[in-house]
Amino acid sequence: MVIRTVDLRSDTVTLPTKTMRAAMAGAEVDDDVLGFDPTASCLEAEMAKITGKEAALFVPSGTMGNLISVLVHCDVRGSEAILGDKCHIHLYENGGIATIGGVHPRPVKNNEDGTMDIGLVEAAIRDPQGEQFYPTTRLICLENTHANSGGKCLSVEYTDRVGELAKKYGLKLHIDGARIFNAETALGVPVGRLVRAADSASVCLSKGLGAPVGSVIVGSARFIAKARVLRKTLGGGMRQIGILCAAGLIALQENVGKLEQDHRKAKALAEGIAQIKGLKIDVASVETNIMYFDIEEGSNMTALKLRKKLEEHGILIMFDNSSRVRLVMHHQISEGDVQYTISCLKNAMAGLPEENGI
Amino acid sequence: MVIRTVDLRSDTVTLPTKTMRAAMAGAEVDDDVLGFDPTASCLEAEMAKITGKEAALFVPSGTMGNLISVLVHCDVRGSEAILGDKCHIHLYENGGIATIGGVHPRPVKNNEDGTMDIGLVEAAIRDPQGEQFYPTTRLICLENTHANSGGKCLSVEYTDRVGELAKKYGLKLHIDGARIFNAETALGVPVGRLVRAADSASVCLSKGLGAPVGSVIVGSARFIAKARVLRKTLGGGMRQIGILCAAGLIALQENVGKLEQDHRKAKALAEGIAQIKGLKIDVASVETNIMYFDIEEGSNMTALKLRKKLEEHGILIMFDNSSRVRLVMHHQISEGDVQYTISCLKNAMAGLPEENGI
Amino acid sequence: MVIRTVDLRSDTVTLPTKTMRAAMAGAEVDDDVLGFDPTASCLEAEMAKITGKEAALFVPSGTMGNLISVLVHCDVRGSEAILGDKCHIHLYENGGIATIGGVHPRPVKNNEDGTMDIGLVEAAIRDPQGEQFYPTTRLICLENTHANSGGKCLSVEYTDRVGELAKKYGLKLHIDGARIFNAETALGVPVGRLVRAADSASVCLSKGLGAPVGSVIVGSARFIAKARVLRKTLGGGMRQIGILCAAGLIALQENVGKLEQDHRKAKALAEGIAQIKGLKIDVASVETNIMYFDIEEGSNMTALKLRKKLEEHGILIMFDNSSRVRLVMHHQISEGDVQYTISCLKNAMAGLPEENGI
Amino acid sequence: MVIRTVDLRSDTVTLPTKTMRAAMAGAEVDDDVLGFDPTASCLEAEMAKITGKEAALFVPSGTMGNLISVLVHCDVRGSEAILGDKCHIHLYENGGIATIGGVHPRPVKNNEDGTMDIGLVEAAIRDPQGEQFYPTTRLICLENTHANSGGKCLSVEYTDRVGELAKKYGLKLHIDGARIFNAETALGVPVGRLVRAADSASVCLSKGLGAPVGSVIVGSARFIAKARVLRKTLGGGMRQIGILCAAGLIALQENVGKLEQDHRKAKALAEGIAQIKGLKIDVASVETNIMYFDIEEGSNMTALKLRKKLEEHGILIMFDNSSRVRLVMHHQISEGDVQYTISCLKNAMAGLPEENGI
Repeated sequence: MVIRTVDLRSDTVTLPTKTMRAAMAGAEVDDDVLGFDPTASCLEAEMAKITGKEAALFVPSGTMGNLISVLVHCDVRGSEAILGDKCHIHLYENGGIATIGGVHPRPVKNNEDGTMDIGLVEAAIRDPQGEQFYPTTRLICLENTHANSGGKCLSVEYTDRVGELAKKYGLKLHIDGARIFNAETALGVPVGRLVRAADSASVCLSKGLGAPVGSVIVGSARFIAKARVLRKTLGGGMRQIGILCAAGLIALQENVGKLEQDHRKAKALAEGIAQIKGLKIDVASVETNIMYFDIEEGSNMTALKLRKKLEEHGILIMFDNSSRVRLVMHHQISEGDVQYTISCLKNAMAGLPEENGI
Repeated sequence: MVIRTVDLRSDTVTLPTKTMRAAMAGAEVDDDVLGFDPTASCLEAEMAKITGKEAALFVPSGTMGNLISVLVHCDVRGSEAILGDKCHIHLYENGGIATIGGVHPRPVKNNEDGTMDIGLVEAAIRDPQGEQFYPTTRLICLENTHANSGGKCLSVEYTDRVGELAKKYGLKLHIDGARIFNAETALGVPVGRLVRAADSASVCLSKGLGAPVGSVIVGSARFIAKARVLRKTLGGGMRQIGILCAAGLIALQENVGKLEQDHRKAKALAEGIAQIKGLKIDVASVETNIMYFDIEEGSNMTALKLRKKLEEHGILIMFDNSSRVRLVMHHQISEGDVQYTISCLKNAMAGLPEENGI
Repeated sequence: MVIRTVDLRSDTVTLPTKTMRAAMAGAEVDDDVLGFDPTASCLEAEMAKITGKEAALFVPSGTMGNLISVLVHCDVRGSEAILGDKCHIHLYENGGIATIGGVHPRPVKNNEDGTMDIGLVEAAIRDPQGEQFYPTTRLICLENTHANSGGKCLSVEYTDRVGELAKKYGLKLHIDGARIFNAETALGVPVGRLVRAADSASVCLSKGLGAPVGSVIVGSARFIAKARVLRKTLGGGMRQIGILCAAGLIALQENVGKLEQDHRKAKALAEGIAQIKGLKIDVASVETNIMYFDIEEGSNMTALKLRKKLEEHGILIMFDNSSRVRLVMHHQISEGDVQYTISCLKNAMAGLPEENGI
Repeated sequence: MVIRTVDLRSDTVTLPTKTMRAAMAGAEVDDDVLGFDPTASCLEAEMAKITGKEAALFVPSGTMGNLISVLVHCDVRGSEAILGDKCHIHLYENGGIATIGGVHPRPVKNNEDGTMDIGLVEAAIRDPQGEQFYPTTRLICLENTHANSGGKCLSVEYTDRVGELAKKYGLKLHIDGARIFNAETALGVPVGRLVRAADSASVCLSKGLGAPVGSVIVGSARFIAKARVLRKTLGGGMRQIGILCAAGLIALQENVGKLEQDHRKAKALAEGIAQIKGLKIDVASVETNIMYFDIEEGSNMTALKLRKKLEEHGILIMFDNSSRVRLVMHHQISEGDVQYTISCLKNAMAGLPEENGI
């Protein structure tokens, strides 16, 4: 008996589609270090166009995309970057901007919706007069959608205001747009508009868009020229990379349109969870494809137990702590999978008294 | 006409006393890089004894003391240090632990009293299982007294609890004890007890203790051996340094006892300020030699204006922002200076309507 | 009219073969960050077996392979690595071990054959007693084959002696084995034997072996566990990477055997060049697939001019300086291409007097 | 019985003179971090004048002086500095420019006279076109006098030529002038002329000049402004530092003139050593106050043995390896000490056969 697999751990788990595989098999390629791979160049041009930026660069991962972006903007020793205290760069990228790049992070409190108060950001900008005591603020980072807050979208208005603040103080603005297409879909605002105020953005191809590997960073031609050098330094310069970029192009063509369904399925899953005794979820807060739910205290259940129980039924989840579970929707989860998951969750929570396991 | 100078900007401004100058002139010295300077060794031994640690090392500044301590505890690439979001290391030391040392700072909210909630600290410790996404937590830093909160003391109980937490997770604890003797004085608890839970501490000789230059870091013999090497790397290895250490010894002998008066004078100054219309200060919160007061909104005064006005009368102050002023008491401020300052402040605030300057 | 292309710039320019493309299209894949991609694991297991090491890790490039290896061995701040002054890591990898990793390089003179004198290496090892003045030597790096010396092979005897030296002083030995299969082929000694003395090695799949992208590093299980974390930090953690690894597996199966022909074709090309007036090459020194030839001084030719002339005939070359040209042989250069190149070179050199171009 | 002490290990071992001690005791001082210490400013102005540079900065050590200088010139990530493979920065400063500053060192062979061949330096400058593979060359470092070559002087002509080369390629030139006054004395060329071609220089007060602590770096006002910030970051910002600077001023006034005698005494010592059987020294090569001599192979003596024997007679020396001994002359070695040392050396070498120790 084969157990159905419903992998809700992340939208990074999607498998390449048939079209992608065909595209990879047939991709025109060349040495992208000695010169330029034509398929990579095509993908980069496409992403530059979509985001309204001068240039783009394919990188092996979102982590490298963010690392390069922060380091290029902060290329002088003694730089500081302002970022959210719950943003991906600060929490989940190994602290690379400091441990590899020597950039001093200055975290500002993230609100529930993924924003930071503009006033707090402004207050965190260092006075250049005090430079004998202070690192030099050079960068503000935003994340759209904001993963840790449950995939919340940053509005154009908010982003623009941060952009103005950055300009006022001569700072750069980087947007970690790993899931910026989800924001585009949810807000009905094109990606190009969402990142207009930013000096750079990273966009992930291997999350909701379903490509097997890679991110693209975008910015000015000068930014990308520097980024290309740093990509080589970090070891992200790859040869006939058109293979992967071909899948990225398909992802842009075929999968952006599927995000709306992902969001609808996420909403349906959240609504199902809201009905389950012992689980708590704010359905209205599910704006895109990520959701967090809480296990209520008296429920005799822990996130670890729940994960194990669901695993027996082929459902994979991740959790933050003993009572907070994260689910991520993607195009390879069907509506049937959603119902199946709700049903398994319900059983798991209901069946508790009888079990003595774990 | 000579204007009286009352320098309340910091306790770092004190001038060496006669005894110190005599001690410096007569100090027995030797090359402290090729071997050991006898007066430096004597000071180091004394500080090790006072703090109850195995060994000690003289360093040119508190900043270097903290930098070395953090870097020694975090000597492996990929380390993270938990520290208060308003602590001196994070805000006023140029971000050196990241920009020079590649250590990732993980700031946790500082309460009004300079503590961080133990629960928040524990939550900030990284799960070693997630090391592919996380830097490795290796260190917790405390600051006693806590300058930015107005010289508040951390209690033994609090420090011990953080120490236990550190031990539980295999972390180190460093105390930035730039003004730890002020805490000793205010709490009536010996320095050695205050830092018992710590793996290292830095103690400043040139703040309240009035020596011209230098700090001492303390810890295990192994810690100090590594610190000595790093001091050399940073360029803090000095030759016949006994000259400065001689003043440090006098500071320990003669000036620790004066801190009580500093605190009393600080209290008197705070009480005076509390009586001035347009200024706001919480007298009870002045535990040691640092105080902050606020300029009330409707008062038509700014911190910058106030600084300029006082400067005309020889009184020097610093401010944080347009309405928050910092005053620091030290042994070269007399009780007369305190009254003079109160009087000048009162005049400055009262005289406002007439002036249209700045 | 289509011009025939003979790309002799590097063996990185090869295009994926039909079998590789098919393998990539059909590869079984999974998320290699959240778990393990089966095809990546298969490739890693295969490379571990070939090299006789416990474990292996796929990385996006040789540069990242070397960077990770050096940084893992030198994970403590203040480390120094001894390496050849003409090795790839020191000359062509952006200085990343220092600029990104803070590792101090200690170059030792490379001989014509790619070795460093053992005596010089031993003399460069720092005395641990002098650690107040010295960084700590932790690593020796070798490169086999040695690109800058014209693809020379390091013998087992030499490597073993360096390995013994490393062991004697408690150091690690890393081998940059980007072209270690060329050494295996030329020496008739299996790769596993060639790297036996090493604690780690990097092996490139996208040079002579012809895979589109990637290298593999090998070492102890503990080394690879640390390498995996650092790969994530650098942004080299990729998702469904089995796509590329499938091509790597084909490279191992199908292309290792072709290296012998590459070496034979390289020899033939060198012999042809030796006959051309104005060019100088030491045919005997061409051991593998790389060769350098010099343009003689009186010849009225420069490397730049020669490159342009050959380019008109579809032949691509690189040069080191105005008189030193590098050619690299690979499996997509036919014997006909070799003869064609010799002929074009001869014409270019002979035809000089008539031309006044460039 | 008190043993006479003749400390020939380094010129850093000198003790402050009476005048220095008096000057330190009486120095006018102030907080050099919050503002400027008047005596420090005076010393800095004096050194700027002597060296013909716009500005100067007192630092705790020569190591910090060099570290700051290199890091200010190489403030952008990805920088490379060309320096001699036997220079102090590369060999004896803990590799700090890489391990702390992330600067990639590119050592070029030092000749016997402390120079590097201009051609080799030029060849080491990276082609900016190849920046995807190369760090960016930003700095050339010289050392005058060159310690490891036995205190050899770099001529004005040589320095100027390197300066022209630097200018041609848009690079900076830093001179480690720890003993630049010795060069001035030996060459009869003022320091200001010797460093004219340099963008920065570090000058040591605590070597031949005999001050207890400190170095001064000089350069443009802009360079020094950046250096001041970095000094604070490293922890070299000190408070009432005029204490030490007062001694530095005396050193400039009283001790520069004594260097000529140091050189004469060094010559005399070398001549004496040349007469001793079993020791080998090139008297002509002793240009300033440092000399190296070799123990001949058949002499049954080692450097370690010799050091121990001399130590019994109060003479302290250092050695490089088992047969190479270093002696450094300074103003607290008398002519009598020189004769005494020669005599003890002779006895030590002659007495060998009888002893079987060590």
